[in-house]
Amino acid sequence: MRNIALIVSYDGTDYSGFQSQPGGNTIQDKLEQVISKLTGERVRLMGSGRTDAGVHARCQVVNFETSSTIPIERWAIALSTRLPNDIVVQSAYSVPDHFHSRRDALSKTYRYTINCNRMPDLFRRRYEFHHPTPLDLEAMRAGAAHLVGEHDFTSFTSPLSTKPSHVRTILETKLVHETRTEAEGLYANPIYNREWDERHYPGKTRGVIHLYVTGTGFLYNMVRIIAGTLIQIGESKIAPEAMPGILAARNRARSGPTAIPQGLSLWEVVYEHLPSGQ
Amino acid sequence: MRNIALIVSYDGTDYSGFQSQPGGNTIQDKLEQVISKLTGERVRLMGSGRTDAGVHARCQVVNFETSSTIPIERWAIALSTRLPNDIVVQSAYSVPDHFHSRRDALSKTYRYTINCNRMPDLFRRRYEFHHPTPLDLEAMRAGAAHLVGEHDFTSFTSPLSTKPSHVRTILETKLVHETRTEAEGLYANPIYNREWDERHYPGKTRGVIHLYVTGTGFLYNMVRIIAGTLIQIGESKIAPEAMPGILAARNRARSGPTAIPQGLSLWEVVYEHLPSGQ
Repeated sequence: MRNIALIVSYDGTDYSGFQSQPGGNTIQDKLEQVISKLTGERVRLMGSGRTDAGVHARCQVVNFETSSTIPIERWAIALSTRLPNDIVVQSAYSVPDHFHSRRDALSKTYRYTINCNRMPDLFRRRYEFHHPTPLDLEAMRAGAAHLVGEHDFTSFTSPLSTKPSHVRTILETKLVHETRTEAEGLYANPIYNREWDERHYPGKTRGVIHLYVTGTGFLYNMVRIIAGTLIQIGESKIAPEAMPGILAARNRARSGPTAIPQGLSLWEVVYEHLPSGQ
Repeated sequence: MRNIALIVSYDGTDYSGFQSQPGGNTIQDKLEQVISKLTGERVRLMGSGRTDAGVHARCQVVNFETSSTIPIERWAIALSTRLPNDIVVQSAYSVPDHFHSRRDALSKTYRYTINCNRMPDLFRRRYEFHHPTPLDLEAMRAGAAHLVGEHDFTSFTSPLSTKPSHVRTILETKLVHETRTEAEGLYANPIYNREWDERHYPGKTRGVIHLYVTGTGFLYNMVRIIAGTLIQIGESKIAPEAMPGILAARNRARSGPTAIPQGLSLWEVVYEHLPSGQ
């Protein structure tokens, strides 16, 4: 048997999440069906982690065992041409027998995208959260910085979580500002009023904010609750200095709402012996 | 009566084109319905030009007359919130009575996007043509340059065209190369083989090519046939020097195929007295 790892991208809009479900219509179900059809074997694959319904992936990593003799350089094209056009296998690698896409992941990065312009970006509307008023980016950065390190993230997961421990390690948080429409262009549009924005949203910024969160492991809904909390910090509803208290409370009621899934993408999974990125 | 101009963006994927049709389901129908609902008047609007079924617009310009007293700065938001989420009114302007969005357009720019990587870009797949082998960008630039100026574009329109004249003026053609995945990253992926590419596609490039065509007026399917012909030039099936002969032949059979609509967007319409761009 060979062990094969795939780097997979998907648009999660029309799926019930990554992990296989009785009803089907998950990314894992689609991949297993297509691999099984190609190899004639019943295949069970392992993903680096789940993604919720509606969440996307730039680089999800999965692996599976097969006795197929298809050369390694053929797998990505063979699978992609058989998959629906919202799932693409970017590349395939032969990996050692012991490779396990979830256990061997050194870190994972998720990206959550927030568009703070008045109008949604039509051509990226499936991949971002539209927040039509400006946000305080510096406050969000200060709030996010408090999450770095080993913490009990009970305040940042579903109260229904059955995990024995909610202690996880965040390695890095990063907020990147993309103006997309240059500031001058934006305020040349009469739907924007610079004075109004400056008076009503002092210190806040328009444009698009990408939140990157890198960690060694994540809880159910964790990045979406982090995003929802940072948005409330950006709205000045929560002070960035409140973050340590929210963590210490270990109480889901203390953090912000769970941000909608469409803004979230699994961005990168890092392994010792597998190239990362697309 | 007031004359109001709107700058409108749309994702044309699910529409039968811009111009109103008996069956409905066009951008014009949707806009007229929403404006009529907002104003209580029967409204007929004028667009800067048609776009085919499946073609998108970053900046289409339309105008209409109304006796509504809604302040000009409210229109864009009022209409956008009532429109389906694949149509957005970016801004609204009060224009002089004589303003006519088609006749007063000084120039229009269309963009056609071609992705030459082996795998489609999942998150932009609705807005580009996927051409999985590399193209000769310099040959395409040379071919496109022959189109600039006043020419009879009979070879670049549908044989069914009933226009009395096929003489049009192209002001500029521009091909912009976007690597999107940096070259090193691309060839780090085992589905790509630099030597294979160099041996089989000498002088050709991967990445994404945006073709911009600016002119004072366009014929039915003209930009898509230009794109289809330039793609054949990029594939070395047609020499760039053949372009003048193709124009002179005034024969649709001499040019390349009509490229699929999804790669095309109406990018910009320029007027003397209206801001352009988003």
